[in-house]
Amino acid sequence: MRVIKTVSEMSAEAARLRGEGKHIAFVPTMGNLHEGHLSLMRAARPRANVLVISIFVNPLQFEPGSDFDAYPRTFREDLKKCEPVGVDIVFAPTEPDLYPEGFQTTVEVTEISKGLCGDFRPGHFKGVATVVLKLFNIVKPHVAVFGEKDYQQLCVIRRMVKDLNLDVEILGHPTVREADGLAMSSRNQYLSPDERKRAALLYKFLTEARKRYERGERRAQALIARVQNGLARDPRISVEYVSIRDRETLAPLDTVDRPAVMALAVHIGKTRLIDNIFLDQQKM
Amino acid sequence: MRVIKTVSEMSAEAARLRGEGKHIAFVPTMGNLHEGHLSLMRAARPRANVLVISIFVNPLQFEPGSDFDAYPRTFREDLKKCEPVGVDIVFAPTEPDLYPEGFQTTVEVTEISKGLCGDFRPGHFKGVATVVLKLFNIVKPHVAVFGEKDYQQLCVIRRMVKDLNLDVEILGHPTVREADGLAMSSRNQYLSPDERKRAALLYKFLTEARKRYERGERRAQALIARVQNGLARDPRISVEYVSIRDRETLAPLDTVDRPAVMALAVHIGKTRLIDNIFLDQQKM
Repeated sequence: MRVIKTVSEMSAEAARLRGEGKHIAFVPTMGNLHEGHLSLMRAARPRANVLVISIFVNPLQFEPGSDFDAYPRTFREDLKKCEPVGVDIVFAPTEPDLYPEGFQTTVEVTEISKGLCGDFRPGHFKGVATVVLKLFNIVKPHVAVFGEKDYQQLCVIRRMVKDLNLDVEILGHPTVREADGLAMSSRNQYLSPDERKRAALLYKFLTEARKRYERGERRAQALIARVQNGLARDPRISVEYVSIRDRETLAPLDTVDRPAVMALAVHIGKTRLIDNIFLDQQKM
Repeated sequence: MRVIKTVSEMSAEAARLRGEGKHIAFVPTMGNLHEGHLSLMRAARPRANVLVISIFVNPLQFEPGSDFDAYPRTFREDLKKCEPVGVDIVFAPTEPDLYPEGFQTTVEVTEISKGLCGDFRPGHFKGVATVVLKLFNIVKPHVAVFGEKDYQQLCVIRRMVKDLNLDVEILGHPTVREADGLAMSSRNQYLSPDERKRAALLYKFLTEARKRYERGERRAQALIARVQNGLARDPRISVEYVSIRDRETLAPLDTVDRPAVMALAVHIGKTRLIDNIFLDQQKM
């Protein structure tokens, strides 16, 4: 396993690998790797000759006043986790290399970035789209894997790839969960033991809603209200949104008459958590 | 010479050519080809194995109420002009293929797109950056050639390529002029015979300003005022801007103490014309 720390070296190496006919799979991360990230790498591994992952805490996607400075940085531990899952190259660029003086280009996926997290994290998806496009251009992957936990992010990237005619296959990978159902996230470690217990309620109410859907409930507002009311009963949980959207366009649905995603964001204490579940007749 | 009309075919052909180790040069155009375009193609020809040009009148870069519908479309005549300069592929996509339903991604080069034409054509450079990025991703060129006549556009594209880590070399090519100095442009044909004569004043005053600069004048305002006043004496010419900028960043200059560009835009009757000239100690 090789660690590459400069944009120029990574770009040249990727060009060389492509020139040799090698297929490149890519998993971009912000480090602090957990089982969720590792599952993306395991999914990517058999898809290519060379598996590249990136570790970069991207300042562009942190809105002002958020946890950019506090975001956990655990580079040494991350490297130890990469090797066993078969990572070939860890690309860990510096901020001045990726955003040199004079940097001023932004990529925006306008419609899909609105609503859900987009309403509460202004500029977030612009920062995500911009850094992912840059990383794609540097790493030149044939396939890239993203977690379904950040579902709006996955949709933004799929749309960007389509709209900008990028030759990259985007694979979504199911959310990895703790034993009690909590979606794995680097931000879970911000939770106190008491908050951590309450955090299991997110997936509990999402799966309950899916059961009601599977029993025939198609009114989005009825499904949403149950989750909202359920979560609101816990005084430590503050609901940001609960929403049911078209699975591809993320357009809000009144009636769940097509493949949909139920997504939510809450604050538990000072920690913001998101999760989602698919509502899908195929899975009944 | 081959004409390719679909995005999928062009993208696959470019991938095939790259796979064979071929070098691709690219000249994007909006058609209505004149000697200015042909000079770009001649400059591109020796730089690669395969010369691709595109013809696409890009709706995204026409601000509302501008001449998108009136823009001259002369596809058959264009094809005849391409063959003698050694074009291998003419890529002429349709609008629904390049901007299918649901398209929503935009690329913005924020600072360089401000001022000059950016102040008078809202959204124009966003449209240019977006379509050029798409065309780059489809045509996959090693080198692309742009005219210096649209100087702000050239700077926007150079900055985008740098900021998004694209592996494309951008070549700027000098403006081609008519015998009386008027910069070649598809929009020149909108001019009446009387307006056409007056249009030669743009380059006349620009070259005069360059002479004053070469004789030692370094005060931007003094150089600008002479051009503005000179043009203002013609009652049919309405000056939009005359400005002196840093040649790379396009930052406004008070003192011309570094490589600079003097750029202007005017309306003659209903036609908007732009031109520019370099102020450069190396050329004294």
